[in-house]
Amino acid sequence: MLSKNQIKFIHSLKLKKYRDLHSQFMAEGTKLVMDLVESNYHVKEVFAVKEWIVEHAERLRAVGIILTEVTDEELSRITALSSPSPVSALCSIPEREAIITVPRQGLTLALDEIKDPGNLGTIIRIADWFGIRNIICSHGSVDLYNPKVVQSTMGSIARVNVIYTSLPEILSNLEPNVKVYGTFLTGENIYKADLENDGIIILGNESAGISLEVKQFVTDKIYIPSFDVTGHAESLNVSMAAAVVCSEFRRRTITE
Amino acid sequence: MLSKNQIKFIHSLKLKKYRDLHSQFMAEGTKLVMDLVESNYHVKEVFAVKEWIVEHAERLRAVGIILTEVTDEELSRITALSSPSPVSALCSIPEREAIITVPRQGLTLALDEIKDPGNLGTIIRIADWFGIRNIICSHGSVDLYNPKVVQSTMGSIARVNVIYTSLPEILSNLEPNVKVYGTFLTGENIYKADLENDGIIILGNESAGISLEVKQFVTDKIYIPSFDVTGHAESLNVSMAAAVVCSEFRRRTITE
Repeated sequence: MLSKNQIKFIHSLKLKKYRDLHSQFMAEGTKLVMDLVESNYHVKEVFAVKEWIVEHAERLRAVGIILTEVTDEELSRITALSSPSPVSALCSIPEREAIITVPRQGLTLALDEIKDPGNLGTIIRIADWFGIRNIICSHGSVDLYNPKVVQSTMGSIARVNVIYTSLPEILSNLEPNVKVYGTFLTGENIYKADLENDGIIILGNESAGISLEVKQFVTDKIYIPSFDVTGHAESLNVSMAAAVVCSEFRRRTITE
Repeated sequence: MLSKNQIKFIHSLKLKKYRDLHSQFMAEGTKLVMDLVESNYHVKEVFAVKEWIVEHAERLRAVGIILTEVTDEELSRITALSSPSPVSALCSIPEREAIITVPRQGLTLALDEIKDPGNLGTIIRIADWFGIRNIICSHGSVDLYNPKVVQSTMGSIARVNVIYTSLPEILSNLEPNVKVYGTFLTGENIYKADLENDGIIILGNESAGISLEVKQFVTDKIYIPSFDVTGHAESLNVSMAAAVVCSEFRRRTITE
């Protein structure tokens, strides 16, 4: 049973202002909620229909999560989706450490003003698939806890660290010889370029690409060649580009 | 100036039933409309604000397209988007030829029950970028002229042929030795598999994957390996998989 105040509170979390104020966000769906439960995230309370609770209660009670039984009708009143799932969870936003250096080893994605929630969610999912554990977003990028971002990660939000910072600041403090790859419409053909297994891959804004202030830190410009002989294909969407780029970096580790 | 009846007619085209009845669909935005104008599609009428008409009138009148000046307010009443663009176009749905064979040369995508409009639009855009000119959809796939599909192609709809047919029927009528690649969660690692430049690549439904009746025609099972050591990353979304697969097929043509 949900009170009017609870419903109002949950609704308020659709806005970044209130998510920041309360350091909480909502997540919906079995896969996503269970992935968060198994992660470092703190799931405070789970709202679910009876059948769902029966199936999952043991696991959730074992880790001390409050379980609240609600009806389908109540779930439909708190959902941010067009068709509500049988479970919604209230989670704490972890305190983000103010990192000042990028891990020397492994690949890190840096997102320069990614604005579309679906793109950020998809990029997190791609990073997860390709074993990239860290994403750095510019301050102006869409918020990680936006309901559309959370949902479109399909649970990958539980496994990929996403932090917000100033890209120029972090890029000007790199250790020597760290490669900074940037995707452009010109540069070196990604299929022929020298790609290392450590470094930073920058992906730019949906319309403007990589900003001038970030571009100056790029050591290796790469591009995905088009095979469209008409020359009309405008560009790949940034999340599709992320899929191709991450795939190509990882391919090198197993075939070369 | 738009009449009430025109507005009603345009709205009706959001539904497949009325698009089929009238063989017409709507497209919005400068890039998409101009790509359609330059293609084999027949653009019947363009509704745009004054400034847009001034800029594009010469090109459109040269090919005999009716231009109707409308206000922003009128455009907001006919748009299928959350923020309307300065131009909307009424286009004819071309008669689809009942094809019974797949081109022997080049790559063709076959989509087995792709249901999400954004996924179909994105896959068309990927095909365009990677120079794949033909897509075959199972009858149960989402409609090409669904406004969300049209918009998410970003103009690629003008350059990629999409037809709807029975996949088992077309796959049982292939010429000898045509490769049929299917993406699965098991199979041969795509980065190591033998990939030819001619053949059919089948992509399956968002939840169910490739159906049993289509699977029997697959000659080469391939999969995209995950680099997520936790093993929790569920899968790549079908449009991300399409990006990785098309990229890998095309890479072979330039580096091997």
